[in-house]
Amino acid sequence: MIVAGKHYRTVWMEGSTVRMVNQPLIPYRFEVIDLPIHRHTAEAITTMVVRGAGAIGAAAGYGMAQVALEAPDGREFMAYITEGAERLRHTRPTAHDLFYAIERVLRAIEGATSVAAARRAAVEEAERLADENAAAGKAIGEHGAPLIPDGARILTHCNAGWLAFVDWGSALAPIYMAHRQGKRVFVYVDETRPRGQGARLTAWELEGEGVPYAVIADNAAGYLMRRGEIDLVIVGADRVAANGDIANKIGTYEKAACALLNGVPFYVAFPSSTFDPKCPSGEAIPIEERSADEVHYVIGQDEEGALRRVRITPLGAQARNPAFDVTPADYIKTFITERGLCAPKEVSRFLA
Amino acid sequence: MIVAGKHYRTVWMEGSTVRMVNQPLIPYRFEVIDLPIHRHTAEAITTMVVRGAGAIGAAAGYGMAQVALEAPDGREFMAYITEGAERLRHTRPTAHDLFYAIERVLRAIEGATSVAAARRAAVEEAERLADENAAAGKAIGEHGAPLIPDGARILTHCNAGWLAFVDWGSALAPIYMAHRQGKRVFVYVDETRPRGQGARLTAWELEGEGVPYAVIADNAAGYLMRRGEIDLVIVGADRVAANGDIANKIGTYEKAACALLNGVPFYVAFPSSTFDPKCPSGEAIPIEERSADEVHYVIGQDEEGALRRVRITPLGAQARNPAFDVTPADYIKTFITERGLCAPKEVSRFLA
Repeated sequence: MIVAGKHYRTVWMEGSTVRMVNQPLIPYRFEVIDLPIHRHTAEAITTMVVRGAGAIGAAAGYGMAQVALEAPDGREFMAYITEGAERLRHTRPTAHDLFYAIERVLRAIEGATSVAAARRAAVEEAERLADENAAAGKAIGEHGAPLIPDGARILTHCNAGWLAFVDWGSALAPIYMAHRQGKRVFVYVDETRPRGQGARLTAWELEGEGVPYAVIADNAAGYLMRRGEIDLVIVGADRVAANGDIANKIGTYEKAACALLNGVPFYVAFPSSTFDPKCPSGEAIPIEERSADEVHYVIGQDEEGALRRVRITPLGAQARNPAFDVTPADYIKTFITERGLCAPKEVSRFLA
Repeated sequence: MIVAGKHYRTVWMEGSTVRMVNQPLIPYRFEVIDLPIHRHTAEAITTMVVRGAGAIGAAAGYGMAQVALEAPDGREFMAYITEGAERLRHTRPTAHDLFYAIERVLRAIEGATSVAAARRAAVEEAERLADENAAAGKAIGEHGAPLIPDGARILTHCNAGWLAFVDWGSALAPIYMAHRQGKRVFVYVDETRPRGQGARLTAWELEGEGVPYAVIADNAAGYLMRRGEIDLVIVGADRVAANGDIANKIGTYEKAACALLNGVPFYVAFPSSTFDPKCPSGEAIPIEERSADEVHYVIGQDEEGALRRVRITPLGAQARNPAFDVTPADYIKTFITERGLCAPKEVSRFLA
């Protein structure tokens, strides 16, 4: 996507350095951060400098390429690879793209006949993963745009735009495509507490694309659905199980429940790298619990433009912070993937 | 309730001055604010220095008493009363207690045979309203406590505790009562964006009462219900329509939707002053839209303990901010009132 006249991906590699958009600074500043070694890349995933299923996947792929470039020659090569892969696997538990990317680069390394060839193969596979992710975003946009009627008022939750992928995004891709096709669209953007990815990232992306929108408190989506002010919902996914259940940002389930009770079509958009055929149902998806401080504190810009953290709960208050939830397949109308549309319960056959 | 060893009501009157707990400062500071004339009291309602249906009602009743004390003798007396009542009616649109209190004091004034008697009657009626509200809170606690089993994990939304009333509260009153009866209870407290009444006020109240709790992002309640971690939901109400539909803080409907789909009993607690027999259904309840700035900015305490406002959306971002939503009667299991329990659809007969 274009920022200040220049085309950016969310994450990319130059030499052995991984470079990525520093997402906690958006919308306040647009900054690219350099991560010279795989340990830095792993930390950037854990601390959510990069977030969003597809972008996490691409970052993990590049992280694996860094592991291959850093690994010593000779007999210790594969031990270093194994250890690096394990470190990257432990950065975040929920998004399937992370594990998918690590396995893909691992297989490329294992298939090589020399250390030099393994390093080359790792970098090439990481680049291929990123390219596939960007292409998938565009294809999701093409398949999803026909679901959006002219004049549609759309709800989205969290950020599943280009910042959550390498380019384009999943949930926002059909919206961008419909907008470029000249359809009138209006997007209600859930703030998405506790980390505010909607208020910060989705609002910033839509502003950049010139798509009309309004940020709402997460609490307001049900009210708008009941009043008939939302025509459809599109969200992304962090993991899709074999039975069509999905895990996505906490709060997705509440939106799906309101959509179900109000007859509002609920769409989930994702690339096939998010599909986990080994996961039988939503109950088997590991749900990350993050620090309670994300509930206690809010980060924003003060009057002087400085980033500042303020506490919104009493000192000593207790909090819980599950980061994802599971939405059952039967709450979802249609999946939008880079290979086309499918009914949630058909996903295993469709993506086989 | 007790703060630092002293018994406080949320709002009261001394001479012609209305005094109230300054709620935007909680939990950071506990401060009482003095409002010498009814215009100040009206402004305190509009700007939410006092909030919560019952507390708004009591403040409006005292505001009407101030109007009567300020009104000039002679022929202009009733014109001043009418104008003051109109000013107080326009402070907030949704909570019925406000209109109920204004009408009650107006009737007391109109029934008096002299200006001096009208002033006395206005003050007495305002005090009676406050006393009734405090007594209703306690009675709601007594009627509601038996609905809470030992070991219950309870979800509440917004603040319907003693800060929202003159004392005790509505949704929290049965919880306080059950806790004092020695039952083990655990409360999940919705943060309640955009103004954070759960994170700030309910957490602070529960901390003061020693009731175990955890603050959660508004997005997390559905997840906990699906996992069977919530046994019941209790919320308050700002207005109850004749058919049993209720208006309450934005987000209440989303919780009710998740409760309905997961078989979690959903209780609504309110005093009869919140019941509006002239309002046929939820569709007729006026829903306040407040400033978009409540979505754009979050107020909290910085590292030095100062209150500070930070911006969480891009500058220039659009936002919408409905402050209440409507939950239909058939989402609600039981109403808890000071006169006992009733089925939502029976409310008109029950409170007649």
